[in-house]
Amino acid sequence: MPATDALVIFTPSGKRGRFAIGTPVLTAARQLGVDLDSVCGGRGICSKCQITPAYGDFPKHGITVADDALSEWNKVEARYDEKRGLKPGRRLGCQATVQGDVVIDVPPESQVHKQVVRKAAAARAITMDPATRLYLVEVAEPDMHDPSGDLERLRAALADQWDVTGITAPLSVLSQLQPALRKGKWQVTVAVHHDHTGAAPRLIDIWPGFYEDGLYGLAIDLGSTTIAAHLTDLVTGQVLESSGIMNPQIRFGEDLMSRVSYAMMNPGGDAEMTAAVRAALNDLTSALAETAGIDPRAIVEQVFVCNPVMHHLLLGIDPVELGQAPFALATSGSLSLAAADLGQTTLNANARAYILPCIAGHVGADAAAVALSEEPNKSDDLALIVDVGTNAEILLGDREKVLACSSPTGPAFEGAQISSGQRAAPGAIERVEIDPVTKEPRFRVIGCDLWSDDPGFATATAVTGVTGICGSGIIEAVAEMRMAGLVDPSGLIGSAAQTGTQRSEPEGRTHAYLIHDGSADGGPRITVTQGDIRAIQLAKSALYAGARLLMDVRGVDKVDRVVLAGAFGAHISPKHAMVLGMIPDVPLDKVISAGNAAGTGARIALCNRAARAEIEATVAQIHKIETAIEPKFQEHFVAANALPHATDPFPELAQVVTLPQVSFNTGGEDGGRRRRRRG
Amino acid sequence: MPATDALVIFTPSGKRGRFAIGTPVLTAARQLGVDLDSVCGGRGICSKCQITPAYGDFPKHGITVADDALSEWNKVEARYDEKRGLKPGRRLGCQATVQGDVVIDVPPESQVHKQVVRKAAAARAITMDPATRLYLVEVAEPDMHDPSGDLERLRAALADQWDVTGITAPLSVLSQLQPALRKGKWQVTVAVHHDHTGAAPRLIDIWPGFYEDGLYGLAIDLGSTTIAAHLTDLVTGQVLESSGIMNPQIRFGEDLMSRVSYAMMNPGGDAEMTAAVRAALNDLTSALAETAGIDPRAIVEQVFVCNPVMHHLLLGIDPVELGQAPFALATSGSLSLAAADLGQTTLNANARAYILPCIAGHVGADAAAVALSEEPNKSDDLALIVDVGTNAEILLGDREKVLACSSPTGPAFEGAQISSGQRAAPGAIERVEIDPVTKEPRFRVIGCDLWSDDPGFATATAVTGVTGICGSGIIEAVAEMRMAGLVDPSGLIGSAAQTGTQRSEPEGRTHAYLIHDGSADGGPRITVTQGDIRAIQLAKSALYAGARLLMDVRGVDKVDRVVLAGAFGAHISPKHAMVLGMIPDVPLDKVISAGNAAGTGARIALCNRAARAEIEATVAQIHKIETAIEPKFQEHFVAANALPHATDPFPELAQVVTLPQVSFNTGGEDGGRRRRRRG
Repeated sequence: MPATDALVIFTPSGKRGRFAIGTPVLTAARQLGVDLDSVCGGRGICSKCQITPAYGDFPKHGITVADDALSEWNKVEARYDEKRGLKPGRRLGCQATVQGDVVIDVPPESQVHKQVVRKAAAARAITMDPATRLYLVEVAEPDMHDPSGDLERLRAALADQWDVTGITAPLSVLSQLQPALRKGKWQVTVAVHHDHTGAAPRLIDIWPGFYEDGLYGLAIDLGSTTIAAHLTDLVTGQVLESSGIMNPQIRFGEDLMSRVSYAMMNPGGDAEMTAAVRAALNDLTSALAETAGIDPRAIVEQVFVCNPVMHHLLLGIDPVELGQAPFALATSGSLSLAAADLGQTTLNANARAYILPCIAGHVGADAAAVALSEEPNKSDDLALIVDVGTNAEILLGDREKVLACSSPTGPAFEGAQISSGQRAAPGAIERVEIDPVTKEPRFRVIGCDLWSDDPGFATATAVTGVTGICGSGIIEAVAEMRMAGLVDPSGLIGSAAQTGTQRSEPEGRTHAYLIHDGSADGGPRITVTQGDIRAIQLAKSALYAGARLLMDVRGVDKVDRVVLAGAFGAHISPKHAMVLGMIPDVPLDKVISAGNAAGTGARIALCNRAARAEIEATVAQIHKIETAIEPKFQEHFVAANALPHATDPFPELAQVVTLPQVSFNTGGEDGGRRRRRRG
Repeated sequence: MPATDALVIFTPSGKRGRFAIGTPVLTAARQLGVDLDSVCGGRGICSKCQITPAYGDFPKHGITVADDALSEWNKVEARYDEKRGLKPGRRLGCQATVQGDVVIDVPPESQVHKQVVRKAAAARAITMDPATRLYLVEVAEPDMHDPSGDLERLRAALADQWDVTGITAPLSVLSQLQPALRKGKWQVTVAVHHDHTGAAPRLIDIWPGFYEDGLYGLAIDLGSTTIAAHLTDLVTGQVLESSGIMNPQIRFGEDLMSRVSYAMMNPGGDAEMTAAVRAALNDLTSALAETAGIDPRAIVEQVFVCNPVMHHLLLGIDPVELGQAPFALATSGSLSLAAADLGQTTLNANARAYILPCIAGHVGADAAAVALSEEPNKSDDLALIVDVGTNAEILLGDREKVLACSSPTGPAFEGAQISSGQRAAPGAIERVEIDPVTKEPRFRVIGCDLWSDDPGFATATAVTGVTGICGSGIIEAVAEMRMAGLVDPSGLIGSAAQTGTQRSEPEGRTHAYLIHDGSADGGPRITVTQGDIRAIQLAKSALYAGARLLMDVRGVDKVDRVVLAGAFGAHISPKHAMVLGMIPDVPLDKVISAGNAAGTGARIALCNRAARAEIEATVAQIHKIETAIEPKFQEHFVAANALPHATDPFPELAQVVTLPQVSFNTGGEDGGRRRRRRG
């Protein structure tokens, strides 16, 4: 008597069960809860359910798989292979039926909840579970004897064929429903958005028959200066295109506070800024769709991360309350709304937008995204995460507790308010070294791999020139000046007589250090002035004081690791940051750059709806510290003003240089003041 | 020892309990679940919680109420009385406290779920339970030590003070939240919409402090010919203003099918009609608000009832599928959506719209509204409910089962396609009597109470003239002609020789009956032609056949009562309707006019959200019959063509006139045909 059923084992899940001979592999997978994709519901159209049967002996599973363990290659598979090509060994899970004991592998691309390895350093992967998915459904035709609406029959079909219940339909889809059903001969593909909020699933779009093109989403990091967007495939999780543009609000003010001021001083100023950023987002979306060669209608979701002021201006809320104590947010919770409500018109008309929650009035959805990406709340060791920008957002925590604050570092770290400062762009000095013996500098500029003392540097930089010094460059310059004994612990630049180099030039009542003189070729003289040192001291004190404040609250004197986040954080030299006292001392290999962690957080929230619920819960648990009202913040700020390290703290990584502890008192501006206070 | 608590009895509910001396009456009422209104939450602002204490002996309740059973009149009450006036004997429930045993009456206007007696004949009342309500809330101020959004604190306050949880806020309200909270010193009034669908409650609007003006809604009966709207107070249920305008879609086609044809023949024709009706609705709303002297922002809800074609055109859905079998609706379920999605801009920006469910492709939300108003599903006896218009919607049922169909009566009942027909307007003949002996007619016209043979009729109608005959007039004319022996059972008009009156005039190969000759004064000659009789016969046969079909399905030969609904139904003479055979015979006192039952249904759904759930459940239970595919409908239609009654079937109500059974065979058009068929 032939066997009436057979053992089916799926890998990599290891799920197994006995099924009647003739059962389609897809059916067996579904009954076992194996993660095998299908959009067409087993009709041999979508090819999402590809599987690879394995043959031979499997002692581990205790079975032997015969060559005829699956049914023969059928017409549907042959046609698909001819039209699109099936990889060798692959079968369509909906067509191949079980004929004997078999081991079946589900390749990653056939898993709904496939994992996408992130580009960032951390090895964590994103599990795909997007809010919007496609479903092919067969809808019953209308029956005059039992009249019902086309939408009601579509609802019944979705519930019956896909267990998707209670969908709502916007009018724009409802008006397309009848023609689509008739054109598709009662077979349609629908995009359904079902998020984590408990709201009823929404019909986003409808296509007659089987819709073959993909669905896409945008992960958007809306910064004060730049807007970065990642066009992401909602099935594979892959980023098709990334693009960044300047935030057009810059014309209303360079930093956050100047934009808040603009809104306060100009009636309707907030609406102007809202309109500007929304228009820029529309343009960015159009450009991304065009570059990637996709239909803008296929873009069905947006996820935004941004600081609180950008958050309010995106939403059309006057940010005035964020400019004054108690820094009240209009809303701190996450937002799930129609992209159209945000004036977004260059993507699917029913696209949805999700905005991560804000942590506090100064700690925005961008910090929440960093928390989602870096997961301090799941860390075994105590992590200090710093997102460096015009404001620094600081997170400190581990599994036990996470603390957050924001610190007003000002724009010095971004090269602004520095005498030779500029944005990070070709021609900007980004790396600096100063010989502790000769006091001679060498440097590198963005766009060129050579050092300034390498042969060919002048030729290689002929086009860009050496135009100024960017944020990471000024940090290295100041740290190197301190290590070379050009600057004393109070931050004072010594005179040529004191430092032994003519590069120490008088500048008013203080001194400046000449890094590069391009004046012979009509270029700039690039110096680090006493004012630049003061600006960096203020910025680094603010950053350090914020971190120290959180450490106080946590009751610790040191942290186990430091994560530098943000595009700028990616370029800071950890060694120099510690020389400056920007961040608390930790072993150098415990300082990690997380790259654009906020953007990564946005991508995670775009690809995985459970991550949205997760970050909402995490943010609710984060303990917020308002630096503006903590007296200890001021204490730490003042105490952190000095430049403590006379030596390179990591001699094993660099030439060991021991310098005398220098301290200048030249009667210059600051020294004079100090004297007067003493007098 | 003085008593520490006291017995409090509320009337009319009879709820009672003991409360500590000093308990405010409002608190006692809330704890007992007594239906006592309050918008301000007991702050002595809103005056919604007015109560009337009763003093003296109450043997029924076994207590005596002393004069000092409540606390003395306090400052808040005195101020309120001075500013607004309190009725004698009234107290504010939130101010008066219990001092001894007391009986407290809650007057109807202080009940949240107050009942409003409908104007319509039926005595049923509407229980107020609107979806949108006002709440005064006190919101916690922001705290830098525990930062949270203003919306999140408003949410907490609503949950804490009003048990309203999980509200969502549209961006337009969110952008008003911060200024309103600060202007109102952390006290705001919010309008919250919480319907029956299970959706989260929505914030509709916000006002600083206590908002004193009311909330209003519109109950809209969107007909093919006219649009009627009732501006309704959502607290009292009273209709402030009603207004009707012509449906501007008339220029695209008089009846439903011609509008469907217009959409089929003209690309974008459906969008044109959608735009026209939406603009008209906006104008109607503005006009109503202006007449009533209210702020359009206070109009927060709309409820629509309409036939399926109007339904689709309102929603922006091409109605083409409704013009051909199987008459599939795009959606048959109820719709709960933003009024803005329907292009409604002249009311609150966040106003909600509710559209009742459709019963079938030919039986719309208007028929559902009739079912809600007339409740056949709760009837002990078997009711036939007919909504007479261009299409007649017919409901037959009782507690056991309700059947529904639609019957294509055509426009004859509305005076269209009648030789002297016109819409019901001043100057139109609406009542007709014909003396069975002299065969002389007399009539009344709309806008004048005199009969045409009364002295002064000519003077009274000098302005309007006698311009034509409207729907109810033609029905009476044909029925009276039959009773006067001017028409035989087949519907043929006799010649002057046969009828004995010169008013029977030759008209082509048939005859016509002259009702009024205004030609001497330059007015029209108003006659009932053979064609008119045929049009009425077709219309009444369709109506009767629909009713009979439902009776067949139900397995009955007679019904217990007939309800005539619709504005036109309100003017039909039941006697003449039965003479014509429009409706099955029932005792005359069992024919009731329900007035504009569809409009009443809309008002009920506007004032009571539970009624929405109720009608949705009822519609799901209604058994739909499609007349177009029922062979028996054709049979009934043909069989119902005759005019059976030779005599007034209700002689006790009119002069008894017995006439010979006349039957003409004049060789005219129809008679000739009949002969040819015989030959």
